Amino acid sequence: MRYSRMFLPTLKESPADADVISQKLMMRAGMIRKVAAGIYNLLPLGVKVVNNVEQIVRSEMNRAGAQEVSMPVVIPSELWKESGRWEEYGKELLRFTDRHDREFCLGPTHEEVVTDMVRREIRSYRALPVNLYQIQTKFRDEIRPRFGLMRGREFTMKDAYSFHATDESAEQEYRNMYDTYTRIFERCGLEFKAVEADTGSIGGNFSHEFTVLADSGEDAIASCNKCNYAANVERAELRPVAEGAVQPGLKSVERVSTPGKKTVEEVSAYLKVSPKDLIKTLIYESDKGVIAVLVRGDFEINEFKLKAALDAQFVRLADEPIVRETTGAPSGFAGPVGLKVRIVADYSVRTVLSGVAGANEADAHIINVDPARDLRAEFMDIRNAVSGDTCPRCGGTFEIRRGIEVGHIFKLGTKYSKAMGATFLDEAGKEQPIIMGCYGIGIGRTAAASVEQNHDESGIIWPLPLSPFDCEVLPVNVKEPETMKAAEALYEALKKTGLDAFIDDRDERAGVKFKDADLIGVPVRVTLGEKNLKQGLVEIKERRGGAQRLVPVDDAVTEVLKTLGSLS
Amino acid sequence: MRYSRMFLPTLKESPADADVISQKLMMRAGMIRKVAAGIYNLLPLGVKVVNNVEQIVRSEMNRAGAQEVSMPVVIPSELWKESGRWEEYGKELLRFTDRHDREFCLGPTHEEVVTDMVRREIRSYRALPVNLYQIQTKFRDEIRPRFGLMRGREFTMKDAYSFHATDESAEQEYRNMYDTYTRIFERCGLEFKAVEADTGSIGGNFSHEFTVLADSGEDAIASCNKCNYAANVERAELRPVAEGAVQPGLKSVERVSTPGKKTVEEVSAYLKVSPKDLIKTLIYESDKGVIAVLVRGDFEINEFKLKAALDAQFVRLADEPIVRETTGAPSGFAGPVGLKVRIVADYSVRTVLSGVAGANEADAHIINVDPARDLRAEFMDIRNAVSGDTCPRCGGTFEIRRGIEVGHIFKLGTKYSKAMGATFLDEAGKEQPIIMGCYGIGIGRTAAASVEQNHDESGIIWPLPLSPFDCEVLPVNVKEPETMKAAEALYEALKKTGLDAFIDDRDERAGVKFKDADLIGVPVRVTLGEKNLKQGLVEIKERRGGAQRLVPVDDAVTEVLKTLGSLS
Repeated sequence: MRYSRMFLPTLKESPADADVISQKLMMRAGMIRKVAAGIYNLLPLGVKVVNNVEQIVRSEMNRAGAQEVSMPVVIPSELWKESGRWEEYGKELLRFTDRHDREFCLGPTHEEVVTDMVRREIRSYRALPVNLYQIQTKFRDEIRPRFGLMRGREFTMKDAYSFHATDESAEQEYRNMYDTYTRIFERCGLEFKAVEADTGSIGGNFSHEFTVLADSGEDAIASCNKCNYAANVERAELRPVAEGAVQPGLKSVERVSTPGKKTVEEVSAYLKVSPKDLIKTLIYESDKGVIAVLVRGDFEINEFKLKAALDAQFVRLADEPIVRETTGAPSGFAGPVGLKVRIVADYSVRTVLSGVAGANEADAHIINVDPARDLRAEFMDIRNAVSGDTCPRCGGTFEIRRGIEVGHIFKLGTKYSKAMGATFLDEAGKEQPIIMGCYGIGIGRTAAASVEQNHDESGIIWPLPLSPFDCEVLPVNVKEPETMKAAEALYEALKKTGLDAFIDDRDERAGVKFKDADLIGVPVRVTLGEKNLKQGLVEIKERRGGAQRLVPVDDAVTEVLKTLGSLS
Repeated sequence: MRYSRMFLPTLKESPADADVISQKLMMRAGMIRKVAAGIYNLLPLGVKVVNNVEQIVRSEMNRAGAQEVSMPVVIPSELWKESGRWEEYGKELLRFTDRHDREFCLGPTHEEVVTDMVRREIRSYRALPVNLYQIQTKFRDEIRPRFGLMRGREFTMKDAYSFHATDESAEQEYRNMYDTYTRIFERCGLEFKAVEADTGSIGGNFSHEFTVLADSGEDAIASCNKCNYAANVERAELRPVAEGAVQPGLKSVERVSTPGKKTVEEVSAYLKVSPKDLIKTLIYESDKGVIAVLVRGDFEINEFKLKAALDAQFVRLADEPIVRETTGAPSGFAGPVGLKVRIVADYSVRTVLSGVAGANEADAHIINVDPARDLRAEFMDIRNAVSGDTCPRCGGTFEIRRGIEVGHIFKLGTKYSKAMGATFLDEAGKEQPIIMGCYGIGIGRTAAASVEQNHDESGIIWPLPLSPFDCEVLPVNVKEPETMKAAEALYEALKKTGLDAFIDDRDERAGVKFKDADLIGVPVRVTLGEKNLKQGLVEIKERRGGAQRLVPVDDAVTEVLKTLGSLS
């Protein structure tokens, strides 16, 4: 493709309304343009990248035995009423009526449509299992769409739904999709983690999120440095700590004055101890009553885990009056000793040797607290994982990385099949609800996540499999006939090898062309300058890392192929 | 692909609500299912065919230098208000509001979005021309959707829009798209005509419809048997007929009594002459006044042509009182001789030798009318073309075929660029509106039109390029181990050659399998039966024509390839 003929409008500056790096760079690189809040045009460069993602997804889904279907964007309300989601789903479901005043919605997801499609055709266990997928436009009327293609209202998704006669079959397909997603994101050239998204404790259902690692990611992921366990820090399981023996020789608990010192930082500085020596006590309200919750001073309580551990409907930090009523002191001086309420403690508290805690009295703390000796508490896993924590599976060590969710696999069970009467006759001739799984990948989101993971201050750095072009030919001065002759010959020779080559044949200043090349981020660039060419040389530069070398012009094709070979 | 694992539910009977052959057969063959009026699911077999169409369209559009983009389904009203179509477009434009009460519509076509995209980026003639296309979901809220994928509400379309600095460039791209569409439909294996959809007389704009020929088509097409001229019968140009010499020896006009004989049939039967000898006279009202319109008795007046020839806003047959006032007689007895109003005549009238016409008097006609001698009329082309008419371009002969419009190319001019301020600076630095063209192909419609053109009483007959599979392997009895061994080996061997092979490995009766194979319509089928196999033979059958032959099982792959080669 020739730059001079391509609709590829780059921008020198980031648009004011771009929130994140990928949005800024994709707009600057002429890939996307906003049409309305959360609604984008893909320009030719954007389509090329998205088509690359789609092609990888389609080929791997087909290889996995899934079958492509196509369901509508516009869905009749009847199906959503059957599942109950017409009422349940919030305003993100865009509802409207057609010219005959019939109710429809724009599909944010297609469980209802696919369940209806399958229930009308499948009668017997012999026709199961089946896995149906589509790559299709969806719409979610987000209240505050942002981040470009990362959280748009209209977006392209690969969604797959599988149907099974047995749990075993559903779990087998779950593993098949896990492996397929792994291959998909590997083939995209992305660094990613399959993150456990549910502990698996509820109803035999489980799910994984596939997360592309990027410093700018919304999610913090704890992943083991030895095995492949990974989970959101809020959900990562931590190992129980056994109760220690009472420490010999530790003095009794003693009250000390801490005037106005309330926070962990203030108290540890004032008493010249480490935050690790503090036992932080927080008073929570919940549907299970008022509860004192303890955690080591350097950790944070994870309310998601707390709620699950208490099997509570809600938990929230108590207001000042309740704190005073519970502890007899103002906030900041709560402590576990002498409280009348239920006390739960994170396992980390057991690692405190000689602890400091609130004295349940204004301007006072207690010291010499031995958890084994002095605490009456139920111990559980209720804090966020941090770097250095121990993996619950293999004893390895957690690293904390940030990530962007691009895929999700889910063992769905019979929620939709029961609600909508999608049943089959089993081998004994008995009617059973079909067991379902669902599996999604955000197509545009994957492209955007790739940019979040792969960029520098100059622009995008495409992994080769997603790159809009394999290589770029950059003649420095198009007015110089010898340069253009060599550039055109090289461009044609590269295309002849089957590469998708790009030539910047614009009559622009060299600086503009180099800047645009870095911004667009094609993996390998061949620069043809007058001076080098006089010596029969051209420059090959890798976008990632910036390594560059001069090679004989006659070897340029071979050298490009070699460099691309090293990247794939 | 294995039938036993494929989601391919065939139907023995046509669904009651299917209107046309393609809809019936695509539903019976398990390709489509209705979700709501005019809204369909594509099942795996349907997706395979539609993907084949898409791939041909995409590769030819890219080869033509067009660039793929992707515009949204959900379009903000502002853009449609700018073009004026928010108000003008009828109820087929489905309008709704989002959660913030902003107005949107579902895009039935994308002139506004693409014009906005281009006007924001293109400043100079140097950035022109550019041709942008997408393959995308559209929605038109048809009042009575029908014919399955032929006239759905939600449908997939390839729409392209080109932008030019000069008329010459726009016309060059028009020819480029004409050639591209020709290649596309040729590659699809369809018999089609490029039909002139406008006479080209208005404002330098012109357009062609690409029509797949099928007896069930909605449109009647006149096409030349020698050159490639083709047009809707209503628009097909007919050659002028020069005024003839006055005929020597013909008696003077004479009044004859024709009591109660009004129609061409009644009069010609009563007077024992041919309808070709009659000069039919119809009285029209129009914004240009009352006009008598003449045509030879065996032809029909074409009001579309009449209106254009008169440059009238409207034409309609006059009411009885006006007929009486104009002719002095009741309807059925109007004639051209002695009328005071303007008289226009189709050229066909000049071919009448000794004519019969109304006498402008009840129950009477005149005979011996010589058009050259007796008529005062303006002659013009105002009738429908019929089979046997002479081609205006080359003198060849018209055939009348029926067809289905699947593509449309249109030189659009500056309608949208002027309304929306899409301008560029020309070489002289002067601001000019961009000249546009637009080019559409109905993707699902092309698949359906292929079925309308290619089927028989047993089912679909796919042209090889659109077929969901290249070939089918049909073991008659899957319980017979030798049969299945040979079938599986052949299936694997066919796949190894790169063919997309299909095996009906279901444990079904032979009759069911043969019927389904004919219904689904894969071009070549290899049947493996116990009796033939014992002699080392398998049967190869072509779906089109039904030719079948026995070949040695060891030659089956070669024979399949040979047969497919003869089809492509």
